[in-house]
Amino acid sequence: MELHFLGTGAGMPSKERNTSAIAMKLLDERGTVWLFDCGEATQHQILHTSIKPRKIEKIFITHLHGDHVFGLPGLLSSRSFLGGEDTLTIYGPTGLKSWIEATLALTGTHLTYPIDYVEAAEGIVFEDEQFIVRAMPLAHVITCYGYRIEQKPLLGELLVEKALALGVPKGPLLGKLKQGHDVVLETGETIYSANVTAPVKEGFVVTILGDTKLCDNAVRLAEGADVVVHEATFDAETAHLAASYGHATNVEAATVAKEAHAKNLILNHISARFLPNDIAKLLQQARAVFPSTYIANDYAQFELRNQEFKHLE
Amino acid sequence: MELHFLGTGAGMPSKERNTSAIAMKLLDERGTVWLFDCGEATQHQILHTSIKPRKIEKIFITHLHGDHVFGLPGLLSSRSFLGGEDTLTIYGPTGLKSWIEATLALTGTHLTYPIDYVEAAEGIVFEDEQFIVRAMPLAHVITCYGYRIEQKPLLGELLVEKALALGVPKGPLLGKLKQGHDVVLETGETIYSANVTAPVKEGFVVTILGDTKLCDNAVRLAEGADVVVHEATFDAETAHLAASYGHATNVEAATVAKEAHAKNLILNHISARFLPNDIAKLLQQARAVFPSTYIANDYAQFELRNQEFKHLE
Ligand SMILES: [Zn+2]
Ligand SMILES: [Zn+2]
Repeated sequence: MELHFLGTGAGMPSKERNTSAIAMKLLDERGTVWLFDCGEATQHQILHTSIKPRKIEKIFITHLHGDHVFGLPGLLSSRSFLGGEDTLTIYGPTGLKSWIEATLALTGTHLTYPIDYVEAAEGIVFEDEQFIVRAMPLAHVITCYGYRIEQKPLLGELLVEKALALGVPKGPLLGKLKQGHDVVLETGETIYSANVTAPVKEGFVVTILGDTKLCDNAVRLAEGADVVVHEATFDAETAHLAASYGHATNVEAATVAKEAHAKNLILNHISARFLPNDIAKLLQQARAVFPSTYIANDYAQFELRNQEFKHLE
Repeated sequence: MELHFLGTGAGMPSKERNTSAIAMKLLDERGTVWLFDCGEATQHQILHTSIKPRKIEKIFITHLHGDHVFGLPGLLSSRSFLGGEDTLTIYGPTGLKSWIEATLALTGTHLTYPIDYVEAAEGIVFEDEQFIVRAMPLAHVITCYGYRIEQKPLLGELLVEKALALGVPKGPLLGKLKQGHDVVLETGETIYSANVTAPVKEGFVVTILGDTKLCDNAVRLAEGADVVVHEATFDAETAHLAASYGHATNVEAATVAKEAHAKNLILNHISARFLPNDIAKLLQQARAVFPSTYIANDYAQFELRNQEFKHLE
């Protein structure tokens, strides 16, 4: 799993930071990419990455402010032009479906793939054999969701040599053992899956929050997460402004990560007010509360593999 | 007057060319900028120029395909954030107003300035003491307009020394002479404006056409123009495809400029199919028909000053 930040700014695009979008690359896990928010020119940012729009399987929208959704119509069109055929599922607040449909109709855009809409869902919004995604409302000036993505525990790898040595023949029985089933050989002997597979591995938990002031649901969604992405539109000095605009500070983001016993925090949604020197300070102030804090820049990539978290940029 | 090309691609953004937008800078003439089309990320392109969104006075939309309008909501919002207060007028096909209003409502966007909409107007769509703008339908797969921008003749400069020598006192009489009025001095002597002003100067004519196959209205709009901007989505080799897609070739664009007795042609709306070598050929093929042909690249600037046309890039 890799997080690829496509837009890390707040409100408006600047030369340094585009409006919001984060790609969660699940290429090893399921061969697809999930997108969180889609500000204007997200498809342009994608042009400078290896991400293929047709591989985007799900788009989770946190809220309907323009800096989080104005890139949707263009990206949806291009996903079509570029050969996308698989169903795309879009999660987000009520109103997305009618706006997207009206926009596509106005512009005579006919997509080559179906869209499923999941509007205004809270609690478990998606589950399959690999993942559970939960949504909870945050505290912004309009309805805004945070998402918690939990990977289910992974079956341990099959220890092939060991199984063969125990007399398991090459073929379908190996597959059953790998899937966790015990099998009986022709000799009548039972081979236990647990004996020929590595231990079950914990999945990861990633929490991606939309715009919010300091709130309890942010802590709930972030509980024990490997990575929390939290907005930091304001800093310690401008803290008095943050809440009234429905936004948080870097220090509040760090407090959320700390209270939630999360492992890593990435500060996102950085205002263009902050100059390069301020950015170093943003990080410093947050690290005083929660040491394992990082800051997202456009095109930054973070990897989480076997519980190990790494900033790739 | 300068034409500043912000997006010169066709259909989808590429790394080299953004979707459609052209800024006509009328800073000397009226202190404002007129925009023709507004593909996604037009506001991002503007960040790399000296254009100020609050100076954008009018936006002319040729047609409602996504690559010509998806940048509108973001640009309108940013014009507001960046202190725009003057009325913005948007010209284009029916449907623009309801889509923009729905989009702003969905995203809770409150603009600091009013928008006037002029939908589906043909013939003279704007006229004041400086300019006349005419629109005519072209031949695309959906309703698509071409625009002809005519600057009215400019009064000649006042020859101050000559007027003073003839006994005109400093003050308001000089202003009247400059405006073309004859005046009577206290001595009873009549001073003729024509005697103390330089000759009237012709204004410029610029024709900016939306997506179209070869059509008569393109020639009508381009008649005698100083500059014609014509799409060239296809080339001589792919000519058999152009018309069925509602598009033109480079050679057809040149034919329009030639038949219209235009002075200069700029090829625009260039497909990402064309590689750098093809671009040189596109130009060559068009110049064989109409020698004074240029090709638009993103950020290219062309100046028209005192009837002189110059490629500034
Ligand atoms: Zn935001
Ligand atoms: Zn087009």
